Amino acid sequence: MTPIDHPERISRVLHEVGGGTLAVDDLTDLRWLTGFDTSNGWAVLRGGELFVGTDGRYGDKAAAETAGTGATLIVEQQSEVLRERRAQLVGDAAADDLIRVLRRVKDPAEVERIEEAARIADAALAEVEPMLHGMTELDVRAELEYRMIRLGADDRSYPTIVATGPDHGARPHHGATRREIVEGDTVIIDVGALVDGYHSDMTRSWVIGEATSEQRGTYDLVAAAQRAGLDATFAGGSSRAVDAACRDVFEAAGRLHEYVHGTGHGVGLDIHELPFHNRTSDVTLEAGMVVTIEPGLYRGGFGGFRIEDLVLVTDAGHRVLTHSPKREL
Amino acid sequence: MTPIDHPERISRVLHEVGGGTLAVDDLTDLRWLTGFDTSNGWAVLRGGELFVGTDGRYGDKAAAETAGTGATLIVEQQSEVLRERRAQLVGDAAADDLIRVLRRVKDPAEVERIEEAARIADAALAEVEPMLHGMTELDVRAELEYRMIRLGADDRSYPTIVATGPDHGARPHHGATRREIVEGDTVIIDVGALVDGYHSDMTRSWVIGEATSEQRGTYDLVAAAQRAGLDATFAGGSSRAVDAACRDVFEAAGRLHEYVHGTGHGVGLDIHELPFHNRTSDVTLEAGMVVTIEPGLYRGGFGGFRIEDLVLVTDAGHRVLTHSPKREL
Repeated sequence: MTPIDHPERISRVLHEVGGGTLAVDDLTDLRWLTGFDTSNGWAVLRGGELFVGTDGRYGDKAAAETAGTGATLIVEQQSEVLRERRAQLVGDAAADDLIRVLRRVKDPAEVERIEEAARIADAALAEVEPMLHGMTELDVRAELEYRMIRLGADDRSYPTIVATGPDHGARPHHGATRREIVEGDTVIIDVGALVDGYHSDMTRSWVIGEATSEQRGTYDLVAAAQRAGLDATFAGGSSRAVDAACRDVFEAAGRLHEYVHGTGHGVGLDIHELPFHNRTSDVTLEAGMVVTIEPGLYRGGFGGFRIEDLVLVTDAGHRVLTHSPKREL
Repeated sequence: MTPIDHPERISRVLHEVGGGTLAVDDLTDLRWLTGFDTSNGWAVLRGGELFVGTDGRYGDKAAAETAGTGATLIVEQQSEVLRERRAQLVGDAAADDLIRVLRRVKDPAEVERIEEAARIADAALAEVEPMLHGMTELDVRAELEYRMIRLGADDRSYPTIVATGPDHGARPHHGATRREIVEGDTVIIDVGALVDGYHSDMTRSWVIGEATSEQRGTYDLVAAAQRAGLDATFAGGSSRAVDAACRDVFEAAGRLHEYVHGTGHGVGLDIHELPFHNRTSDVTLEAGMVVTIEPGLYRGGFGGFRIEDLVLVTDAGHRVLTHSPKREL
């Protein structure tokens, strides 16, 4: 894979910060900027220099992962001393979401990792999907997560959601249980892989056996909303317009009151990051953003459907990164 | 499995709170008290009554999981409104770690779950351990996590650590990579299962092939420290004494400077919870606490060993819950 160019990011951020001071305390921001992946650490940019602090457990890792970035390492065994060193560097600089905002637009090396993660989840789902009938939700999850690692992932992107039947399927974020998948069930599988720190995210839905007309109609509504959301996804468009496009389809069917969660989110080093597609978002879509479009419809006693693609925003529109087929019911 | 008796816990905490007010904002505390497992919610105990708040996504789940507890549910779609409802109930009550402290002592239903989780990890490790030579770290992890679900777990307890060879083995919290396990490697596997919300935690270490005398000596030192920690684990003892017992063995060997992490922690609904075994702890061990004892020794260019058991503190001493054999090198 193309290496991530951390020195380029660092010089870009140093340029933005100019004569000011920037404290980087979010661990994902720290990793994005420097390549240092840790559970305890920070960076401070000040006077054109980059300082990276951590504790003794991560000293070697910090040195290895920031090699070539020009960072000055500060390794302290005692957390109070480490905090004090940070405070001295930061002074009274205010908190800033500069890096969180920069992270919205992915460079080609990042897209490569996200695309590979999406490919792995597609491949795992293709292997497992023919076997759904008769498996338990947890079986499905175990098979998907095992196969994703065998197919090249470092891990699952998040605990795989397998929500089946009239009760579990009605909960958008149901986990997975020993419930067995039977004829007539609605099935939602929400699955992603992790590759070199980058996530993928995708949801597909099915009916086991012959779909009823209510199932067919509900699925078609979700699918139509999802297509409308995709159509609204292009550089120069907006997160709010993507959200509105999906909601409009529900509203036209008189089912807006059943639109119970947001329409999508950015994906990168975090599974949920900027931008978020919702009614109050003021984000303009830019080429290089990687976002989900994921309307769903759920009802107790019926079950539910969600369809989610991960797409790269481009100048020409978007490129879909998740290729698992969407079944016609 | 024996059901968890949430009404008993609630009446015990209501009794403790008396005429006062207690806000429960930690989601694990909330689950422990009420059985409600959510990513957004709180409880307030006030005037002998229990109120549970959450947002619209979790209204049904809250109702189902708190049935029979006498809780008054507050479900609000808008997060500001939900926050306001909480603020009205809490008034100026100060934060309190009452529940976090109560959680330290497990009841028999909790021990049953933790013991089952430990049994599952033991069984998975017994299946995978004979195959280590030639596997990659990620293969080992994928096999363990897959098998734990097949053996009855709801999930892994945490991302399984497989740290092998002279470099990875030297990092106490290394994850797992595509590195292949070869002759002469030190191998650390830190694995646990999740059962009905309860974690297990265990570490075993090996040498692949014939151990060198340095490997043997280092392993024996860690094993001796771990036994000393176990011997110091009994009701009426202390977290600090358990920590000191392990350190004393390192000190007698002139290697105290290589004792780089804490000696153990409580395990329950969280993988790391009270009490923590370290030099500054002031916790007296009580019957019903479930804790790890996990000294380790790591060095770049050599690798490392860690041996960790999960034990239930009893009046007579302790009962070990993790039964995977500890190899003689």
